[in-house]
Amino acid sequence: MIMSRTEAAPDQARGDLTERLLAGLPAEAVLTDPDITASYANDMASFCPAGAPAVVVLPRTVEEVQHVMRTATELRVPVVPQGARTGLSGGANASDGCIVLSLTKMDRILEINPVDRIAVVEPGVINATLSRAVGELGLYYPPDPSSWEMCTIGGNIGTASGGLCCVKYGVTAEYVLGLDVVLADGRLLSTGRRTAKGVAGYDMTRLFVGSEGSLGIVVRAVLALKPQPPQQLVLAAEFATAGAACDAVCRIMEGGHVPSLLELMDRTTVKAVNDIANMGLPETTEALLLAAFDTPDPAPDLAAVGALCEAAGATQVVPADDAAESELLLQARRLSLTALEAVRGVTMIDDVCVPRSRLADLIEGVERIADKHQLTIGVVAHAGDGNTHPTVCFDATDADESRRARESFDEIMALGLELGGTITGEHGVGVLKKEWLAREIGPVGIELQRGVKQVFDPLGILNPGKLF
Amino acid sequence: MIMSRTEAAPDQARGDLTERLLAGLPAEAVLTDPDITASYANDMASFCPAGAPAVVVLPRTVEEVQHVMRTATELRVPVVPQGARTGLSGGANASDGCIVLSLTKMDRILEINPVDRIAVVEPGVINATLSRAVGELGLYYPPDPSSWEMCTIGGNIGTASGGLCCVKYGVTAEYVLGLDVVLADGRLLSTGRRTAKGVAGYDMTRLFVGSEGSLGIVVRAVLALKPQPPQQLVLAAEFATAGAACDAVCRIMEGGHVPSLLELMDRTTVKAVNDIANMGLPETTEALLLAAFDTPDPAPDLAAVGALCEAAGATQVVPADDAAESELLLQARRLSLTALEAVRGVTMIDDVCVPRSRLADLIEGVERIADKHQLTIGVVAHAGDGNTHPTVCFDATDADESRRARESFDEIMALGLELGGTITGEHGVGVLKKEWLAREIGPVGIELQRGVKQVFDPLGILNPGKLF
Repeated sequence: MIMSRTEAAPDQARGDLTERLLAGLPAEAVLTDPDITASYANDMASFCPAGAPAVVVLPRTVEEVQHVMRTATELRVPVVPQGARTGLSGGANASDGCIVLSLTKMDRILEINPVDRIAVVEPGVINATLSRAVGELGLYYPPDPSSWEMCTIGGNIGTASGGLCCVKYGVTAEYVLGLDVVLADGRLLSTGRRTAKGVAGYDMTRLFVGSEGSLGIVVRAVLALKPQPPQQLVLAAEFATAGAACDAVCRIMEGGHVPSLLELMDRTTVKAVNDIANMGLPETTEALLLAAFDTPDPAPDLAAVGALCEAAGATQVVPADDAAESELLLQARRLSLTALEAVRGVTMIDDVCVPRSRLADLIEGVERIADKHQLTIGVVAHAGDGNTHPTVCFDATDADESRRARESFDEIMALGLELGGTITGEHGVGVLKKEWLAREIGPVGIELQRGVKQVFDPLGILNPGKLF
Repeated sequence: MIMSRTEAAPDQARGDLTERLLAGLPAEAVLTDPDITASYANDMASFCPAGAPAVVVLPRTVEEVQHVMRTATELRVPVVPQGARTGLSGGANASDGCIVLSLTKMDRILEINPVDRIAVVEPGVINATLSRAVGELGLYYPPDPSSWEMCTIGGNIGTASGGLCCVKYGVTAEYVLGLDVVLADGRLLSTGRRTAKGVAGYDMTRLFVGSEGSLGIVVRAVLALKPQPPQQLVLAAEFATAGAACDAVCRIMEGGHVPSLLELMDRTTVKAVNDIANMGLPETTEALLLAAFDTPDPAPDLAAVGALCEAAGATQVVPADDAAESELLLQARRLSLTALEAVRGVTMIDDVCVPRSRLADLIEGVERIADKHQLTIGVVAHAGDGNTHPTVCFDATDADESRRARESFDEIMALGLELGGTITGEHGVGVLKKEWLAREIGPVGIELQRGVKQVFDPLGILNPGKLF
């Protein structure tokens, strides 16, 4: 366990640290006002403890990041890297006396190359900024987490984040070709490549993706791009039971279709959305399925998928006629989390991914857990991936309700593992699920992961207390 | 460096080893006849030294593999895992006194699930066997190395192999969701998942893919499948210069097309094919480009690509009318390596991958190198990926020609690195390129890769002498 120097004589130690940092960083890049540094303590997860940072640094260059890491190594101070802090697992939460290393000022798009279909970016680039920039050149950066208007590419890489597009286009990991990483001791490592293929040595690039800042600081990324697909056309289908909707998902995937999104909202979520907005969703809807296709001619797929939904028992099937109508149909889905937050003030968002053939079992189990704990738990799901976000609604000022919320959150992860799934499809482990990681990957897995961590961060200063 | 016990008293030590292996393996799974074990010494690479195995084992179960590894750990004997030995880098070559661990008898397809779109297989399953089995269910396992009728899935995973499909469908790595791995000490590790997504902890699955048997023995793999696409339609285009063909590749990729293959043959290769078969290729062809599309309606893409080829200076554009004609057009490509082998008896196949925008520079450079060394070097390329296979033809009985062949092979790798590429797009490092790995990934990269190796294989018994 690494101890920050602040434990001995906090003010003195912090002064030393600040002074050392200022030797290689401009004054405006080093924040020490406790009111300001405290505002960097948390990401968006509930139930995750956070400490008070000693200092927040906002480097603008690779050299400045190297200076921060050399200083941290020398003084044995923990470093917590941060992007936009939109994470949902506490992976970016500060620890007491740490250096918060915010990468948000390193936000340049360095290159977009339409022939090689790559972009080279700094970690602080906002996902939406990159998506729009490549879109202007007819290119497409698929990963689209819900927070895409705010979250950074560096954060996306750290958590290997996903989104609605994954059922067709895969997750962030599949778009990271190469990285420049500042190591714990300040040395610079280049991994991977800027070519379409490459297998020279162990895949270190992939090791950093999803490592939640625990192995090194990503300071530059080479990302793969795709050509911009045609605008997607959406179909909405209502079902009288969640089981029927899940059956439709299985039929669609078994039928060989490749939707560009395949999302599910359960009745709790539909009701929550109805409560805050008039979306025209029938109160009797037990499950709403949204499927989309972005092929040059989506009509045959939409017709076939509509028929499969009806065969599975859909009570209504509404295909959009154009992009505008498609966007309207997606509005309800986009409002889901806001609507569920409004139910009891706070939510805890699970991220269990199961084989899609077990989706119905998961949703049924979540209903049982909600009944048992007398809580509202809405399920929104990237159904095509089997990746569900059971969202536990609770009143954080009510201690008993908060306890039940945490218990049900954990029971949902246990259920996910029981169904052959994983505790996290796209949000990461962070602080929130670190006890659960061991249950998923077992003692041999943990031992080897710790061994790898030790290779990259022998002093344990990189984002300590996360993952394991 | 690990020393096999055979160094002290070879026969005695080999006897001990065999006896210990037989305690957990049936007699027919342990081969000790030197004539037979010698036949397991090599894969298909030229210029790669190989030793004499002490014993070859052919386990059929996970438990038997565990027994082999426990025995090897106890006796400190190196273990060289092997699939079908179709590799081109010497990665499966035996070392003196080693246990050759052939996984070819673990060849069961354990599960094919069309809803979850996964297959679960043992490592010895032949690529083509799996491809056909999933094809019967309307599914598709894309990775298609040239050796697909012989090579095993375990070998494909070990080398992260590619093929013609990669320009649209990516490499083997992208299809490996989870693994069961027997570690150096015989313990069993499960990595990854059978779900579409999952980010619990470091990506250990990906670490094993391409690790060339140096981190553990893959005994089971969960593979992602796609729906079977329509049969592809091929277009062939002839060019008066290789540069014009490369220009066409850039225009096609920049134009947003997604071909299911995009292959290039240079004039040397075309000539070699003409010399062994009458394929109707004009002797004046300086470069032949093959593009294919497997969308429901490939006509618009084929027309557009044909026009782009003409704009880039194609002298002839021949689109196929149907699948049979498409297959004919691909025949020349499929014959390329056989044809180049016939030139001087032996070939050394480079595997340099460059950004596709530098493809023309690479081909031009290879011509210079061929001239300098007075050798025939044909280039076949997965052009859409920038992944080239400059194939050095030489007479292995001629010492000087062999020396020049090896020199030109190395010069091509140097050129690839100079152009921002990698020394290996899909064949791996093995023995052949291990000095080059350090040049590509640098001393910090090598140090960290060695550190990772040490975590998984502290005694250094797994495929020693490969990669580093």
